[in-house]
Amino acid sequence: VISCPDRPGIIAAVSAFLFEIGANIVASDQYSDPAVNAFFLRSEFTLDGVSERRREVEEGFGPIAGRFGMRWKLSCGADTPRVTIMVSRYDHCLMDLLWRFGRGEFRGKVTKVVSNHPDLGEAVQGSGVPYECIPVAKGKKAAAETVQIQSMAGSDLVILARYMQILSSEFLQQIGCPVINIHHSFLPAFAGADPYLRARERGVKLIGATAHYATEELDAGPIIEQDVLRVDHRYTPADLERVGRDVERVVLARAVRNHLDDRVLVNANRTIVF
Amino acid sequence: VISCPDRPGIIAAVSAFLFEIGANIVASDQYSDPAVNAFFLRSEFTLDGVSERRREVEEGFGPIAGRFGMRWKLSCGADTPRVTIMVSRYDHCLMDLLWRFGRGEFRGKVTKVVSNHPDLGEAVQGSGVPYECIPVAKGKKAAAETVQIQSMAGSDLVILARYMQILSSEFLQQIGCPVINIHHSFLPAFAGADPYLRARERGVKLIGATAHYATEELDAGPIIEQDVLRVDHRYTPADLERVGRDVERVVLARAVRNHLDDRVLVNANRTIVF
Amino acid sequence: VISCPDRPGIIAAVSAFLFEIGANIVASDQYSDPAVNAFFLRSEFTLDGVSERRREVEEGFGPIAGRFGMRWKLSCGADTPRVTIMVSRYDHCLMDLLWRFGRGEFRGKVTKVVSNHPDLGEAVQGSGVPYECIPVAKGKKAAAETVQIQSMAGSDLVILARYMQILSSEFLQQIGCPVINIHHSFLPAFAGADPYLRARERGVKLIGATAHYATEELDAGPIIEQDVLRVDHRYTPADLERVGRDVERVVLARAVRNHLDDRVLVNANRTIVF
Amino acid sequence: VISCPDRPGIIAAVSAFLFEIGANIVASDQYSDPAVNAFFLRSEFTLDGVSERRREVEEGFGPIAGRFGMRWKLSCGADTPRVTIMVSRYDHCLMDLLWRFGRGEFRGKVTKVVSNHPDLGEAVQGSGVPYECIPVAKGKKAAAETVQIQSMAGSDLVILARYMQILSSEFLQQIGCPVINIHHSFLPAFAGADPYLRARERGVKLIGATAHYATEELDAGPIIEQDVLRVDHRYTPADLERVGRDVERVVLARAVRNHLDDRVLVNANRTIVF
Repeated sequence: VISCPDRPGIIAAVSAFLFEIGANIVASDQYSDPAVNAFFLRSEFTLDGVSERRREVEEGFGPIAGRFGMRWKLSCGADTPRVTIMVSRYDHCLMDLLWRFGRGEFRGKVTKVVSNHPDLGEAVQGSGVPYECIPVAKGKKAAAETVQIQSMAGSDLVILARYMQILSSEFLQQIGCPVINIHHSFLPAFAGADPYLRARERGVKLIGATAHYATEELDAGPIIEQDVLRVDHRYTPADLERVGRDVERVVLARAVRNHLDDRVLVNANRTIVF
Repeated sequence: VISCPDRPGIIAAVSAFLFEIGANIVASDQYSDPAVNAFFLRSEFTLDGVSERRREVEEGFGPIAGRFGMRWKLSCGADTPRVTIMVSRYDHCLMDLLWRFGRGEFRGKVTKVVSNHPDLGEAVQGSGVPYECIPVAKGKKAAAETVQIQSMAGSDLVILARYMQILSSEFLQQIGCPVINIHHSFLPAFAGADPYLRARERGVKLIGATAHYATEELDAGPIIEQDVLRVDHRYTPADLERVGRDVERVVLARAVRNHLDDRVLVNANRTIVF
Repeated sequence: VISCPDRPGIIAAVSAFLFEIGANIVASDQYSDPAVNAFFLRSEFTLDGVSERRREVEEGFGPIAGRFGMRWKLSCGADTPRVTIMVSRYDHCLMDLLWRFGRGEFRGKVTKVVSNHPDLGEAVQGSGVPYECIPVAKGKKAAAETVQIQSMAGSDLVILARYMQILSSEFLQQIGCPVINIHHSFLPAFAGADPYLRARERGVKLIGATAHYATEELDAGPIIEQDVLRVDHRYTPADLERVGRDVERVVLARAVRNHLDDRVLVNANRTIVF
Repeated sequence: VISCPDRPGIIAAVSAFLFEIGANIVASDQYSDPAVNAFFLRSEFTLDGVSERRREVEEGFGPIAGRFGMRWKLSCGADTPRVTIMVSRYDHCLMDLLWRFGRGEFRGKVTKVVSNHPDLGEAVQGSGVPYECIPVAKGKKAAAETVQIQSMAGSDLVILARYMQILSSEFLQQIGCPVINIHHSFLPAFAGADPYLRARERGVKLIGATAHYATEELDAGPIIEQDVLRVDHRYTPADLERVGRDVERVVLARAVRNHLDDRVLVNANRTIVF
């Protein structure tokens, strides 16, 4: 995965390099954003002995990356990203993610579930994943976040699977890996609290969910995936929550899968999903 | 179509009345909103000689309506509501509506197209519907609206098919019939101007459209219909507009059809669509 | 829930009866199919002391039902239908159903899971529902079905949650309750075996699932619910199965919920879903 | 656009060539199908003076194409493919396509509308496109097809916008350009005649449309695009047709647009849509 300022010759240089080391490109996607003169590329290739040759490949690619000013990343299909899931009391996204990780639908492995409540500990037990309860007492969020960060050290991805506390800027800076959040509305509609209640009051005909990278500004980070389901006047608030659960878990799963497959690139406050 | 405070016996009274006059109910939908203790009913029935007997039926129903405090309306399938379409310069909703009215997809008849620009006059010509251009000079909106209201007198419905001027409260009070607007976003997201531009900036993954009754507060009236189409990072602003046109015209057509079939009831700021 | 030949006065008679016993109708849906002169009604009402008065209500309604030749059914919100789930080796529909029953998304209660394989026994354990393995040896299906029928006696609904054996006509006649099946294609496309493989070979752009009542003719029973998800040329057979799992479980859940809420009526080989 | 047997070095060779001639790749998509060892690439690039240098570029690329056994095509954004639309009596797809071509939504230009009926001549008049009626008398299809082929000579694309005659193998061989058909069902369900009627009889809950390349076997060619809309038991055959028109015209428009943008590649009987 590569992003850099756009100029002629990038693909030629990258593909010549891959050809010379003996790689075979099986899929590649490229996008250039003329508005900000940015270039984005994802190349998927096979290479015999890639695990042993990884360092050699990375060193060989260094000068090319330098020449074009690239941010880049090489992942192997055999890599196993370490994932932490944070939850509060709702279990639908959590159980769905654990089931999908268990089936091998995602690259990576859930190393821990962290919650500010003990409630879901029992539900997680069957999966064999450690469950850690770190309570967040009123007025003591900073202390709790320090414990959280230590507990989640080494994560390659944190998933907020309906974690109901707002994370501070400090947390997001120190956690050291991307954080994906699921918001239970079609953002930017109904950012903030109680979106289903407000959706019902506004009388919308579709209920949505949005998976996005968490940033300092609440519910304003780059959107990875969104979807909606149809509702009508007969839906009570409980019905909206029920339908919402169905769309939340699917949207979050798609976002996590695309992220773990290195298909999501951030371009300013938007995402490119190859 | 009936709405009234909810209490036992309404359906019994209505259906007994319909049975006694010899009507046969072919479809009926009912909804009660416990939050506001409101009752809504739409009954579709066949009745021999309904045109001649209309007054008799209406007079017979009066006492029942009075007893339950009903707002109600009797429409005949043969009625032909008079519809005015207001446009500015975009033709996609207008052409689609004219085509659908021409095919008989809707009850009713377009009696006039009113625009603040002359541009679309030629496109309308083929349909045989009169096109009237009423320019809205800067600072002279009130005067223009007076002319518009006179010109559209007798309308049973006004459709804003991408009419780009904000109508005043006075207009909405004086026009004397429902006004349906199409907004080119998934409301309440991107209310106001330039929704596609803002959608692109926010990086949303779905583009929407919302048909709603126009009220004094801009883009805040009861929503009749909404839908979305999927977009991705490759969509330029022009692509978003193109996809948006497809979803706008379909959403507006569904709303107009349901309204003209008397399927839309307003419950506070929400709609019931039977 | 009522179905009978259509003629004037049915609603009047039913609603007068309900009014007289003191019931308050909170929702009602009616549909008449002129092609076969059939009338369908679902009325949802509140009635003080309904549990104790049930027999009285049913007896009181008898003469009306007799007069119009009705098939009818009275359910109480407090009723708890007994549900058996049949599975083979795929767990996605099963786990999703158990989770939804556990949360109270459905009326009713899963009394047993029956499988022709032992594989999913462990996964079911956490839910507390008994798991019974009834192997179906080659050429001994009739004997196995006899055991299944005894084991599931008293069920109000059987759900085939990807049960991979074809049930015989005898089974369907003797089981004595409705049987809902999920087929992993958009029927009638790809009826029978291996729909995902055939979908890929045909190059379809949408993958579907269909929930229907099982009848003697394979994959030909009345359809309750269908939905689709978009796929493209990059989807491997494994990807299609993964996407298919998502659409299967949602379609099956909607069908089961509507069935258990008595919203599904069968009209010849079609369903009416109120 | 390139397709060829897959082997290492193709992208490197193509991108080096493009770099050397001074082109800048703005978007590129690649897909390899391991099942048939096939490689597919679409590269979109800018190149100063491309119109004048076209022959030079094509000649320069020849040896590379030869080395890898490529089928390939170079299109310029300024090219204007010549499109013929064939219709019978339904106007919805035709009017929608003419409106989109008129607005510039598609590359290319409609040079003629050919019909076996005179009915739609008047509707086409406003667009300025010539309308030619070539009747197909019973038993004289071969003769009519000869006239059709002469009349449409030089077309780069033929669109069957609800043309209700089956074209012979001879026609498809002699027409000399791709033929896109819109079928009014979700293929392979309801191939052949009267799909809406059969959809209603089967009680499906979604109505679909399929755009595909016409091949000798009826309704069996490579699928370019499909979509569905939701229907329910209340939809009469006329309602299904109405909803079907909405999905047909959108599906056909997407397929035509993607084809004219050279985004559709055929891989055995499937399509790759970049």
